[in-house]
Amino acid sequence: MKQYVKLDEWRIVEDSFDPHNHEISESLFSIGNGHMGQRANFEEAYSGPSLQGSYVAGVYYPDKTRVGWWKNGYPEYFAKVLNSTNWIGIDIRFGDEQLDLAKCQVTEFRRVLDMKEGHLSRTFVAVFTSGRAVRVEATRFVSIVDKEIGAIRYAITPLNFSSEMTATLYLDADVMNKDANYDEKFWEPVMTDPVSVVVRTRKTEYHLASAMQYDVVRNGEKVAVRPEVAERPKYVGHTLKLDAAQGVTTTLYKYVAQVTSRDHEQDSLLAVAGQVVEAAYAKGFDTLVSEQAEAWAKHWAESDIIIEGDVAAQQAIRFNIFQLNQTYTGHDPQLNIGPKGFTGEKYGGSTYWDTEAYCVPFFMSTAEQHVARQLLVYRHKHLERAKANARKLGFKKGALYPMVTMTGDECHNEWEITFEEIHRNGAIAYAISNYVNYTDDKAYLGEYGFEVLAEISRFWEERVQWTAHKGYVMLGVTGPNEYENNVNNNWYTNRIAAWTLEYTLEVAEYLRENEQERYASLVEKLGLSSAETEKWREIIAKMYYPTDDERGIFLQQDGFLDKDLTPVRELDPSNLPLNQKWSWDRILRSAYIKQADVLQGLFFLGHKYDLETKKRNFDFYEPLTVHESSLSPCVHAIIACELGYREKAYAFYLRTARLDLDNYNNDSEDGLHITSMGGTWMSVVLGFGGLRVAEGKLVLNPFIPGHWKSFSFKVMFRGARLWVAVRQGELVVTNETGTGCTLSVRGTDYQMEGNASLTIPLA
Amino acid sequence: MKQYVKLDEWRIVEDSFDPHNHEISESLFSIGNGHMGQRANFEEAYSGPSLQGSYVAGVYYPDKTRVGWWKNGYPEYFAKVLNSTNWIGIDIRFGDEQLDLAKCQVTEFRRVLDMKEGHLSRTFVAVFTSGRAVRVEATRFVSIVDKEIGAIRYAITPLNFSSEMTATLYLDADVMNKDANYDEKFWEPVMTDPVSVVVRTRKTEYHLASAMQYDVVRNGEKVAVRPEVAERPKYVGHTLKLDAAQGVTTTLYKYVAQVTSRDHEQDSLLAVAGQVVEAAYAKGFDTLVSEQAEAWAKHWAESDIIIEGDVAAQQAIRFNIFQLNQTYTGHDPQLNIGPKGFTGEKYGGSTYWDTEAYCVPFFMSTAEQHVARQLLVYRHKHLERAKANARKLGFKKGALYPMVTMTGDECHNEWEITFEEIHRNGAIAYAISNYVNYTDDKAYLGEYGFEVLAEISRFWEERVQWTAHKGYVMLGVTGPNEYENNVNNNWYTNRIAAWTLEYTLEVAEYLRENEQERYASLVEKLGLSSAETEKWREIIAKMYYPTDDERGIFLQQDGFLDKDLTPVRELDPSNLPLNQKWSWDRILRSAYIKQADVLQGLFFLGHKYDLETKKRNFDFYEPLTVHESSLSPCVHAIIACELGYREKAYAFYLRTARLDLDNYNNDSEDGLHITSMGGTWMSVVLGFGGLRVAEGKLVLNPFIPGHWKSFSFKVMFRGARLWVAVRQGELVVTNETGTGCTLSVRGTDYQMEGNASLTIPLA
Repeated sequence: MKQYVKLDEWRIVEDSFDPHNHEISESLFSIGNGHMGQRANFEEAYSGPSLQGSYVAGVYYPDKTRVGWWKNGYPEYFAKVLNSTNWIGIDIRFGDEQLDLAKCQVTEFRRVLDMKEGHLSRTFVAVFTSGRAVRVEATRFVSIVDKEIGAIRYAITPLNFSSEMTATLYLDADVMNKDANYDEKFWEPVMTDPVSVVVRTRKTEYHLASAMQYDVVRNGEKVAVRPEVAERPKYVGHTLKLDAAQGVTTTLYKYVAQVTSRDHEQDSLLAVAGQVVEAAYAKGFDTLVSEQAEAWAKHWAESDIIIEGDVAAQQAIRFNIFQLNQTYTGHDPQLNIGPKGFTGEKYGGSTYWDTEAYCVPFFMSTAEQHVARQLLVYRHKHLERAKANARKLGFKKGALYPMVTMTGDECHNEWEITFEEIHRNGAIAYAISNYVNYTDDKAYLGEYGFEVLAEISRFWEERVQWTAHKGYVMLGVTGPNEYENNVNNNWYTNRIAAWTLEYTLEVAEYLRENEQERYASLVEKLGLSSAETEKWREIIAKMYYPTDDERGIFLQQDGFLDKDLTPVRELDPSNLPLNQKWSWDRILRSAYIKQADVLQGLFFLGHKYDLETKKRNFDFYEPLTVHESSLSPCVHAIIACELGYREKAYAFYLRTARLDLDNYNNDSEDGLHITSMGGTWMSVVLGFGGLRVAEGKLVLNPFIPGHWKSFSFKVMFRGARLWVAVRQGELVVTNETGTGCTLSVRGTDYQMEGNASLTIPLA
Repeated sequence: MKQYVKLDEWRIVEDSFDPHNHEISESLFSIGNGHMGQRANFEEAYSGPSLQGSYVAGVYYPDKTRVGWWKNGYPEYFAKVLNSTNWIGIDIRFGDEQLDLAKCQVTEFRRVLDMKEGHLSRTFVAVFTSGRAVRVEATRFVSIVDKEIGAIRYAITPLNFSSEMTATLYLDADVMNKDANYDEKFWEPVMTDPVSVVVRTRKTEYHLASAMQYDVVRNGEKVAVRPEVAERPKYVGHTLKLDAAQGVTTTLYKYVAQVTSRDHEQDSLLAVAGQVVEAAYAKGFDTLVSEQAEAWAKHWAESDIIIEGDVAAQQAIRFNIFQLNQTYTGHDPQLNIGPKGFTGEKYGGSTYWDTEAYCVPFFMSTAEQHVARQLLVYRHKHLERAKANARKLGFKKGALYPMVTMTGDECHNEWEITFEEIHRNGAIAYAISNYVNYTDDKAYLGEYGFEVLAEISRFWEERVQWTAHKGYVMLGVTGPNEYENNVNNNWYTNRIAAWTLEYTLEVAEYLRENEQERYASLVEKLGLSSAETEKWREIIAKMYYPTDDERGIFLQQDGFLDKDLTPVRELDPSNLPLNQKWSWDRILRSAYIKQADVLQGLFFLGHKYDLETKKRNFDFYEPLTVHESSLSPCVHAIIACELGYREKAYAFYLRTARLDLDNYNNDSEDGLHITSMGGTWMSVVLGFGGLRVAEGKLVLNPFIPGHWKSFSFKVMFRGARLWVAVRQGELVVTNETGTGCTLSVRGTDYQMEGNASLTIPLA
């Protein structure tokens, strides 16, 4: 844990330079636009520790798997997110002194991520060993208006000297991944011209063309320059010799286009890059900045959460929303939400079950319906790969979605997760139900949903095992709590499997009744037999669930009560975090829980369980939970809200919301926990707001932490956009659209008319 | 499976050249002497697939660990057995044609491993593309008289041409390991002189000096040569231009010394190598060969097993005994028995629990007492490392011996084995009991045994977990059956743990009564408290053992009966071997067993269980066992003998005995399964012979497979050497020494006098 960013409602601010925090800040101050992203690396040279990261969405390298001991079924490759062409580079020299904050004395420093308007700026004064001092003011962003554009304004002022300044503006694709299994470079040169660099990835042959334009401005006037151009494979740089007089500011404007063969014909890439950068250059920096601010204003109008009376909470929730919107826009059907978004390389791939479990609700409530829909269709696109994956593991039918993937292929290679953490299949099914329940988009079921559900159900059918004494059991699984491996009858997995079968049958029934023709053609396409659906009914009826009747709880797995049940609070804190302090076997045989497991089921299937059941399970499992997954606190926050555990709920909220800002897990330097940010949003809206959808009504069950003046959030719901404001003692819901809907607040229904407002007193 | 070697009682014979078998033959025809070993690579160039292997005992490289996903507690390095200086090399050329069996036509070929006399020979006729044909007869061995000597006789005869021949005799240390995690070379040059090469290993800095001498003989006369000497780092070669007339044989004699800094002062290595090779050269090849034959004759006199009426069985058992004796001699206290001995690199390290479980009995019965004793002392030497290993995994006290090691450090890095396959500790304790029971060397207990036992007991004490409803349980272990991972209450592990505590207390009692002073000092040194021994008693009393009362069996682990219990014989054979055909998760959730697990316990602790119990468990578990560990069939053979399952016993015997010769597991090319060879010996002596030791008596309970005329074996027992011959209908025991002992045959005691013979009729 490390708290050094300043509290501010709309900005992330660092106001001094500490190289030990730099890599954390590189993550925290990342910018992105769904197409590309950039860690907060410095434009100028920096010889200190830094994780260089410039990412282009969907461009990956299938890095040859690295294992200690090969197991049958392991994938051949792990798709790596790629550090790509460094487009921000601006090298500054005065004589033989190079601007490098690792070597200069930094007397002033301020780094600001402006979340309201979507840009990163930095001001500093650096003093060279010679005593010469310069001030730099730099601002940059990647455009959310034109996703292929990045722009930088870089202003330098000599404070106590005059001299010639050498500035090199460059594009450099000769970069490495930190996460490379065999230390290879993943990019190969294609061509370089005086303003562009084209490279391609090895094996996958994605082409990336980067082109730059720039201006030098002094005293409001463009300065004519005669650049010395260095071209080589994977690199182009323009070196400018400039006068730099004391007190006079030289401002460099750098415009870059990043275009890929994913979006354009490979042959036209160079031309497209030229056109894109030319258009940006023509608009100019100020216009681009104000377009950016406008576009962000629209985002905020749709998805802002306002918390009054708690700056830390306010800043945190905006940071989470900002990063989610920087990561995924719903424009590209091939993309999904990677665990680190555009802020780091770690975990590779792009898609875990996190998307379905933690991110779909955010996009469903804050973006147009097609955005969440597209996240679901993504899995439909991968259905054939998921079927192939099941075959590879020896299943005769059904689909097993991968633990992590870029294109549908499984990339993960750790048997206890890759082969056993199969509950992910359940989350994918659950997201379909959640989406249809929320949006009422029943058409989705016939178009895409049912096929996915049926193939997942088939997987469960084959994966369960009949025993005369227990019924259907599921052996050798890993639940969401990855601090258990290869257990039998993980309650959550058994439950979500049986639930999948229930829902699939329900959807089949719906389609049979309402979309007769489509249903017939789906049954034919799938070759679905009545023997199968009968078998599903039997499994639902006879699924085994481990329970402890005395405690009235579901058991995380068979034998869980054989463990030492000493709660975490009684553990000497020197043992924490377990994942750093304990050997793996010790973690496994302990009762300590990494993240919600039984409770994940009670969250997903909350409508099926009464409060008392939830309470007994929460009271049993939460004290054993170490929350060493970023995805843990949010689910606990939501259930704590439901149970009226107000202090706990608030503590969990802060932990999830400020996870990265306060570096709770000591790993913010690797990149941000993007998918857990969806969980943060849920902990406010589903937790404090108590939002659910039941019987077509928007359910609100708000509770407001005692020291908050108010909190409010925007949600879209079946065509309506509602502004839900919770104050101490009252709830005000304002419909910003003409479409009405039904609300259910603490058990009472309210008709919410279009363009109207409802004030409901809260006890 | 592949059967191409010819049946022969004393020899392994291959009588044609098939490059597809070459790597298997390289393993099968390996030679070794406990200090060094050499795969059956060709002396001359060979450009076809080949695993070059020249090994020097105890010289290892700590190769940086390679993992997919790091787990806390993993070791930093894996000690690799090293392919070292190629000392056999003799390059032969006629003009620009190089002798290379991958490029010549091979019209005759015969490779013979003479187990009786301990040498490898090869005869072949090779036809070059030009049509020129040569005959080669090569013989080589590594001396078991002087362990640092290797010698080769290489005779070449042009059959249909006369020409100049170029022969290069060389030493080449510029070699690679196939098994290198990061493709590094492990050897660095130290110096080269005209007849020697000195190299050292990276990191560990073992020095190896190799020196050569040679003669060229034609028509019984030494030929004077003027070698062209090539010296470079890690290499020296002598190139000779020789006349080669049609029908005239040129014989090269090459003598090599291999000396290491493990045995000699580093500074003197070069001189020692020179002296050693000089001495060998002075003796000459024929003398060395006859010394070798004499020494092997002595080995055979002590350890031969004769089977009459079954050449396949006879050849196989001699092959196993031969390889065991080639691998370990008991001369060097730092050495142990590696899984591949000197026949391959696979599995690295030198010591698994195999030594205690499978090899100690062989050496205990066929070699002087100090040999087996030394194998046990080896573990005492590593006690501090084993304690450190337990600390590393978070245990406050006790010792956990490594899964695989070279110097006492754990090298294995697969959590389910490294951290969980802790039953190995039990085998180490068991071997002490077994040794003392066999030899009556009670002094061992006070000198070494008790410390090891006490520290292992402390480990078990901390590793068990108290539960009110079950008693002491042991969670998260992997038993000997590695087709289960991270199970709870593996019966074997619980049992061997409780047994360790029992035996430790028994030894404590013995020492307290018989070696009062030593006991007091051990108690002080260990800081052993009565609270600890009390706790051990409690654990013994309250240990939980999973059982199924209905079937009357011990359960391999909690929940075992939830599995599908379809026997292996009902499985479509296309599923086998499971470890190649099934994904890892499928193997894990199946009931199929890799190697004896519950049955391992019934073998070790056979005296504690009645035949009916053994039968019920064997009848339940054996049909579920796929025997995909080389260590599996032998234990099953022994129990099958005990139960009177004669056909099964014979089938298991053949499978274990001819495992490598017939390439049962399709992996003989990686090297031989040396440690399982100890199991083969057990399956004859403990299985067919029914040999045990009880109450100081040598128990024999022989049974002879129906088609055997007889089988006989030699065992040493408490100073006596007995020749035990089993014929159809009678048992003849001949005491070759003056020391008597008591026999117990099928329940009746017999006094075996010195230098006497007893004939006992068998029903």
